[in-house]
Amino acid sequence: MPAPSRSPANGHDAVTGTLLRLVRSEPTATRASLIERSGMGRTIVTQRVNELVDVGLLAEAGMDKSTGGRAPRTVRFRREAACVVGIELGVSSLEVALTDLAGRALGFHEEAWDVTRGPDATLDRIDSIIETLLATHRPPGTPMVGIGMGLPGPVEYLSGTPVAPPVMPGWAGYPVKERLTSRHEVGAWVDNDVNVMAMGELQAGNAAGVRDFLYVKVGTGVGAGLVSRGRLHRGAGGAAGDIGHIAVADAAPLPCRCGKRGCLETLAGGAALAAAASAKAQDGDSPFLAARREERADLTARDVADGARSGDLTCINLLKAAGEQIGRALAAMINFFNPSLVVIGGGVALSGDLLLAAIRHRVYDLSLPLATRSLRVEMSALSNQAGMIGAAFTAIEELLSPQQLTTWTHHLTDTSPPQQTATA
Amino acid sequence: MPAPSRSPANGHDAVTGTLLRLVRSEPTATRASLIERSGMGRTIVTQRVNELVDVGLLAEAGMDKSTGGRAPRTVRFRREAACVVGIELGVSSLEVALTDLAGRALGFHEEAWDVTRGPDATLDRIDSIIETLLATHRPPGTPMVGIGMGLPGPVEYLSGTPVAPPVMPGWAGYPVKERLTSRHEVGAWVDNDVNVMAMGELQAGNAAGVRDFLYVKVGTGVGAGLVSRGRLHRGAGGAAGDIGHIAVADAAPLPCRCGKRGCLETLAGGAALAAAASAKAQDGDSPFLAARREERADLTARDVADGARSGDLTCINLLKAAGEQIGRALAAMINFFNPSLVVIGGGVALSGDLLLAAIRHRVYDLSLPLATRSLRVEMSALSNQAGMIGAAFTAIEELLSPQQLTTWTHHLTDTSPPQQTATA
Repeated sequence: MPAPSRSPANGHDAVTGTLLRLVRSEPTATRASLIERSGMGRTIVTQRVNELVDVGLLAEAGMDKSTGGRAPRTVRFRREAACVVGIELGVSSLEVALTDLAGRALGFHEEAWDVTRGPDATLDRIDSIIETLLATHRPPGTPMVGIGMGLPGPVEYLSGTPVAPPVMPGWAGYPVKERLTSRHEVGAWVDNDVNVMAMGELQAGNAAGVRDFLYVKVGTGVGAGLVSRGRLHRGAGGAAGDIGHIAVADAAPLPCRCGKRGCLETLAGGAALAAAASAKAQDGDSPFLAARREERADLTARDVADGARSGDLTCINLLKAAGEQIGRALAAMINFFNPSLVVIGGGVALSGDLLLAAIRHRVYDLSLPLATRSLRVEMSALSNQAGMIGAAFTAIEELLSPQQLTTWTHHLTDTSPPQQTATA
Repeated sequence: MPAPSRSPANGHDAVTGTLLRLVRSEPTATRASLIERSGMGRTIVTQRVNELVDVGLLAEAGMDKSTGGRAPRTVRFRREAACVVGIELGVSSLEVALTDLAGRALGFHEEAWDVTRGPDATLDRIDSIIETLLATHRPPGTPMVGIGMGLPGPVEYLSGTPVAPPVMPGWAGYPVKERLTSRHEVGAWVDNDVNVMAMGELQAGNAAGVRDFLYVKVGTGVGAGLVSRGRLHRGAGGAAGDIGHIAVADAAPLPCRCGKRGCLETLAGGAALAAAASAKAQDGDSPFLAARREERADLTARDVADGARSGDLTCINLLKAAGEQIGRALAAMINFFNPSLVVIGGGVALSGDLLLAAIRHRVYDLSLPLATRSLRVEMSALSNQAGMIGAAFTAIEELLSPQQLTTWTHHLTDTSPPQQTATA
């Protein structure tokens, strides 16, 4: 290992990492408060804060460079110092946001997109969206320093490649992270969509400040994101949270796409609800679904939610049964993981309160009293921008880690964006 | 919050904590290697290493105080600087060890003990064992600086009190941690026995250096300890790992002690095996168990293990069925948590390979390929001292954390044990 340089914001530097975290969590930080909160000596705190000010990540609050004079004592995190790109790729949609270093959107773009068009076409389209966003929404002189992306399938986080993704034909093993990095010459991090949403909840949603929580996405499939002691638990191979294929029934009628029977996803996901809705429409059990089916051949989970809201008993029972299966699986996960908060999100969950009620019913019925004593089960309060903002935070958290800081902060001291050559 | 003092090994000091961790993991650390590995500046590393040498936690390797002269460059962790007590209380046994700061036993004591005798009698007995161990095994001048303890039931870790422990009548809400602290005037930490065993595996067993793993204890009951990114995940209320009451069967014959039906523990723990063995002995299904029952009225899980080893088919099937139920529940936990290692321990598990084989069979059959790609499922290789050593490590990890260091390191600079007054 080469000896690290002694340049500002040194890599692997526990001191700089600690100080940056403290400043971000305290709007009115001063050198004195940082010395007290970090327990570190005056000399090193002053030195590292000065380095972070020099490099442009912190600013003396209220100080105007042009006026000069003695700097006031408060320092703040310069969220405007750089911008990042957050990308959320769904099965049928693509969302891209440009945000500052606090995850606030400077601009964004959404469009319908079919993930089965494959990685080359998709990433070409993303490149062009990023270029447009940078051209129209990037503040002058602000470098774009990183990209975060969520994919609708399992991702090996370290390499940033999809692994056997069931709904993404052609994507298996494709070097998504590498391609983003080489095309845009910045760090890129790729994760599955559920972890990206959990990151969004942790940074800007219901889970802000919560140490141990679960994010559960009920969309076409069902998946979970785990947070332990305030950080994502991705697991040994980045596969943690894959609850869609937990066996919840011994004698299930339909085999799962994974080849087994009784998987949670065959009984409770959006795809399972859509299949059940079609069957019920055909049987004549549901006047609402039968009517819908005359308008469109393919029924979806949204039709079931609409039916439930209109009072159709079959639809109500379908949603209740799905919620109870999810709640049953969740009760086991809650006994095992003991979170203080479960946030339910995803398209199917957000379509109505009935599913949440059924999930809660089973969770509180089947989990141990010790595990539910102070447990909250809540619907996600984030808007439908949560995916791309969570993806942006995936990049931001990596960029501000001590391991990454030196790789990009030199761009901040340039007088021009990194694409151009700085004039000396 | 009062401003922390600037004394050696300052509380909340990220620098000192980082350096101590690095020295403990590198037997031939030098100031130069610490500067390189930490990425911190020469001045602060030298200053903090000197402080840790002054306080007695690090030593210049090879340097003899009496010879004086210029110190050589290597530094090592002084595991002999202090000692700690590790206590493992079982349902019917009590084990107490005195160890150094690397968890090596200086002396230990084991005896049969009935936990239902209640907290006062049990802790009185523990006090007297600790006094005997200190009198006979403590090296002269070495202070005892902390106590770790494992209990056979749920514990709220922060307060160190048992919470609704099913097999410990009289212990609910008893301030175990507070009592140990006030009696022995040192820090004390109390956890459930499964977390204590997981800590032992992490520090000195199969899981050394593993970031994400599960420890599963199959004893009278079944429980798990979770490790995420190299640290115990205790959950929001300290209840994580409570897998004994996960519902694995819809229509189970016997209600669980928790009041529900179908809990894993009613089908797979030592108590369930003992009950099944008695029934089989009565039915005449097992010649082996019938013969054992004529010797003793109460059959145990050990009898089933003995029978399986002797070739009794009923016993073999009982163990296989128990292993498959555990494996079924574990498969779901593995999909959810994605560990790279599962260590199986506890009395029932250690009684033979049959249970492990059945667990493995179900785990690899039911978990997702991505979750089992690099998964090992192993029997614990720790001796029956693992509990008390794990308990000692529970104290050591806390004592060496930046938050705790200042609370006890002043004892190290005394010339006498903390019980006596130092003569100036």
